[in-house]
Amino acid sequence: MAFGWIDEQAARRRRAGLVRTLRPRAAGTALLDLASNDYLGLARHPEVTEGAARAARTWGGGSTGSRLVTGTTELHAELERELAAFCGFEAALVLSSGYAANLAAVTALAPHGSLIVSDAGNHASLIDGCRLARGTAQVTAHADPDAVRKTLGGHDGPAVAVSDTVFSVDGDAAPLAALAEACREHGAGLVLDDAHGLGVLGDGGRGAPYAAGLAGADDVVVTVTLSKSLGSQGGAVLGPARVIEHLVNTARTFIFDTGLAPAAAGAALAALRLLRREPGRAARAGAVARELHGRLTAAGLEAVRPDAAVVSVRAPSPEQAVRWAADCRAAGLSVGCFRPPSVPDGISRLRLTARADLSGAEIERAVRVIGETRP
Amino acid sequence: MAFGWIDEQAARRRRAGLVRTLRPRAAGTALLDLASNDYLGLARHPEVTEGAARAARTWGGGSTGSRLVTGTTELHAELERELAAFCGFEAALVLSSGYAANLAAVTALAPHGSLIVSDAGNHASLIDGCRLARGTAQVTAHADPDAVRKTLGGHDGPAVAVSDTVFSVDGDAAPLAALAEACREHGAGLVLDDAHGLGVLGDGGRGAPYAAGLAGADDVVVTVTLSKSLGSQGGAVLGPARVIEHLVNTARTFIFDTGLAPAAAGAALAALRLLRREPGRAARAGAVARELHGRLTAAGLEAVRPDAAVVSVRAPSPEQAVRWAADCRAAGLSVGCFRPPSVPDGISRLRLTARADLSGAEIERAVRVIGETRP
Repeated sequence: MAFGWIDEQAARRRRAGLVRTLRPRAAGTALLDLASNDYLGLARHPEVTEGAARAARTWGGGSTGSRLVTGTTELHAELERELAAFCGFEAALVLSSGYAANLAAVTALAPHGSLIVSDAGNHASLIDGCRLARGTAQVTAHADPDAVRKTLGGHDGPAVAVSDTVFSVDGDAAPLAALAEACREHGAGLVLDDAHGLGVLGDGGRGAPYAAGLAGADDVVVTVTLSKSLGSQGGAVLGPARVIEHLVNTARTFIFDTGLAPAAAGAALAALRLLRREPGRAARAGAVARELHGRLTAAGLEAVRPDAAVVSVRAPSPEQAVRWAADCRAAGLSVGCFRPPSVPDGISRLRLTARADLSGAEIERAVRVIGETRP
Repeated sequence: MAFGWIDEQAARRRRAGLVRTLRPRAAGTALLDLASNDYLGLARHPEVTEGAARAARTWGGGSTGSRLVTGTTELHAELERELAAFCGFEAALVLSSGYAANLAAVTALAPHGSLIVSDAGNHASLIDGCRLARGTAQVTAHADPDAVRKTLGGHDGPAVAVSDTVFSVDGDAAPLAALAEACREHGAGLVLDDAHGLGVLGDGGRGAPYAAGLAGADDVVVTVTLSKSLGSQGGAVLGPARVIEHLVNTARTFIFDTGLAPAAAGAALAALRLLRREPGRAARAGAVARELHGRLTAAGLEAVRPDAAVVSVRAPSPEQAVRWAADCRAAGLSVGCFRPPSVPDGISRLRLTARADLSGAEIERAVRVIGETRP
């Protein structure tokens, strides 16, 4: 049979305890959420949901075409202007997802004959960008600017280094200043995925590149998502106007994709304006993460010190991680469970996300449940 | 300078007259739209925009995480059930774009050692899927089932043929029955991108695979977009439940992407229900396309006979295509302008899309403007 071979793979997954299933959630739930990427608690904020509703009514349910044909509305342009200004870049380009933004940035900036130096801990979308790009990718050790420097030194021609700013699995930050220095020594560009930095790091949530003094640099390009701190959907590339113009003309996931739905653009814009008005939300997300970490380690759990809003807690095995997460859930707490093959190092974890709107009592309850259910 | 090489490319584009720029559109416009992919005229339909608004209010501005973590709501599950049932498949999986759906389907179904046979006219997202997949891709001549048969015959092991059902540039249909026959002779799977067929072809818009008697077959997988006939954003993969389960477990653009925004799921679901209630919209889109084609060729223009709702009109050169489209626009008509490098054969065209809600007078006006502005 045509797809017969997939049954064998399915059987292997079952034997290894690695089957993934979808669990649709209800609109209202009593579960305490430490699993989503809604770092600022804005996805359900009335200003954000009204931003979505208003945009759908004004502009329609979809953008109706490629951004180059009918898919660019004045709302997209407005979002791009405000997002670029907020993060300190000359220009921005909004795509339908962070995944699409990463594919666009990496493929467009790594032409035939170029070198891409990619951190071993990078997100799947950056890895896929490296695989799609015409340039040659070299993977360097995790968070190792010296390795980046050395790899760049062996290449003649256009080059970029590519890295998450905050790694999604363990929540650790990349050494941005040192990375930029290594790139500049060799005239290489730096492409940073700030999916987990925007809204959490930098002054008022302007992101990790802003915090590192890299915003607006002519050799730095940043990708962000609209689906985490901004509580919406979509992604964007930020950078010099000439780089954005280059993407408009060459990036396949921009050119051949339908533009972001107006509702998503409207929700993201409303969230961005809210964050500008209430900049304290960003610092609060980080403080909650540090408090979570402090209490978890005080309780004897092995957790990685968070550089942003992700707190990663080690689990002894994939099976125990799954059971641990299920036990948390049964006790009213929703946590992420990361295990192979979604983790590059094969280590299973609970992945907790801090939210700016978690109360002290909620943090306490979360830590208690995680401690009580530990394997 | 790090990105200095892009200036050279920009200069080449300018010299060749191939610069693309974004033209944000206003919410209200007097332009007659024959450029969008809103084939059924549903993007601005109040039921669809209210579906988006209601979903945003009920579920939030975003889905808040990967579909495997917090990004699956009951709304996503509802949309998947109704979409699968409508198109005649066992199961469906919704992703954030049609691009992501194609990357997911092709990469997940073409493992290491497998063969992918890909039509030369396939959409960019299928091509990128072939490039990302671990299997080996072979490109065959456009719409040539014998070439597919021959290529499959030379391979031992898992294989899939991959094709658009309606090709996006010229609007011509793939020979689906013959393709399926070629695949079955060799035990190969068939992956079909029905982005331009759903809502237009098949009984009540159930799509080209349904029309060809392939819906629900255990060796056929179909991808669709929610952003064309359904007036929203997003994509989906339709197929046997075991294939969908395989995608949930292995497709990177599903696993590592934030789930589709509730507003987009809500808009698509509202459009789907509307289409089920008013099935005549599908046939009307095709009829408008045929009428457009008939009148254009009667006026002496070279247009490809439409198999769905896309009508392609040849232009003498990229420059003249751009000028023609601009002249149409100045005369109140919005048309698509496809030119290199977005067209595989290097031929520039005006691309017109028929909409089910175009009136006879609007069709007449469109044909008159196109004729009067021809180069």
